[in-house]
Amino acid sequence: MAYPKNPSPADVAAAPVARLATHNAAAGIDVVPITFAFVDDATVVTAVDHKPKRTRRLQRLENIRAHPRVTVLVDHYDDDWSGLWWVRLRGTAAVHDRPDDALLAPLVEKYRQYREVRPAGAAIVITVDEVTGWSAAG
Amino acid sequence: MAYPKNPSPADVAAAPVARLATHNAAAGIDVVPITFAFVDDATVVTAVDHKPKRTRRLQRLENIRAHPRVTVLVDHYDDDWSGLWWVRLRGTAAVHDRPDDALLAPLVEKYRQYREVRPAGAAIVITVDEVTGWSAAG
Repeated sequence: MAYPKNPSPADVAAAPVARLATHNAAAGIDVVPITFAFVDDATVVTAVDHKPKRTRRLQRLENIRAHPRVTVLVDHYDDDWSGLWWVRLRGTAAVHDRPDDALLAPLVEKYRQYREVRPAGAAIVITVDEVTGWSAAG
Repeated sequence: MAYPKNPSPADVAAAPVARLATHNAAAGIDVVPITFAFVDDATVVTAVDHKPKRTRRLQRLENIRAHPRVTVLVDHYDDDWSGLWWVRLRGTAAVHDRPDDALLAPLVEKYRQYREVRPAGAAIVITVDEVTGWSAAG
């Protein structure tokens, strides 16, 4: 997987939140903020968090089961616009209804909140096949 | 337009960045971070910024011309996950190739960066017809 040099892969991996876009059944696009972690440079894992789930919050899982092609955006906002950057990942997502500890390990390592309360729900694993990046710094 | 009570419309309007998701010609989803401002509670304006444009950066305009239905996500990340929230807007977008000052006024008012350098490129106006919100605080 060829990542852009700028932003650095380390900056992208350290971002606390990304946005996951999925196709919904109405031919529209759903976008939600997600926690995420890299398993390796071509694999991203995200969990449906441990907050009480409402029907709407599982929509992303239904979307992925029907249309597994997803887009993930990781971006950085800075009041100094010369510091802006974003990276867009495209890939194929799979839902793991009962993820094991090994699958969740990168999330647990990245987020102290997951060390305090292990994600209880499903996990989504995205196999990334395209990376596009932009940085105001060039 | 019925907005959720939590997050407040003021919090949503004050967010410095949102994410715009559009359908691309390959039946995939493009997502980019955008500056944005509300014109009124059912209308959002965003500008293609004044940085040197590259072909890729105009992709959103081509996407919208072909598929005007878009989704915009405004979210708030907090290390305290009880402070998380997001609002998702769906609507129909229109490209204004040479926006006049009145159209850009809400952006210029919100962002000092646009007061220093007026957006030089196209603007996108989104007529919002659906708002969905979620807040960890309930």
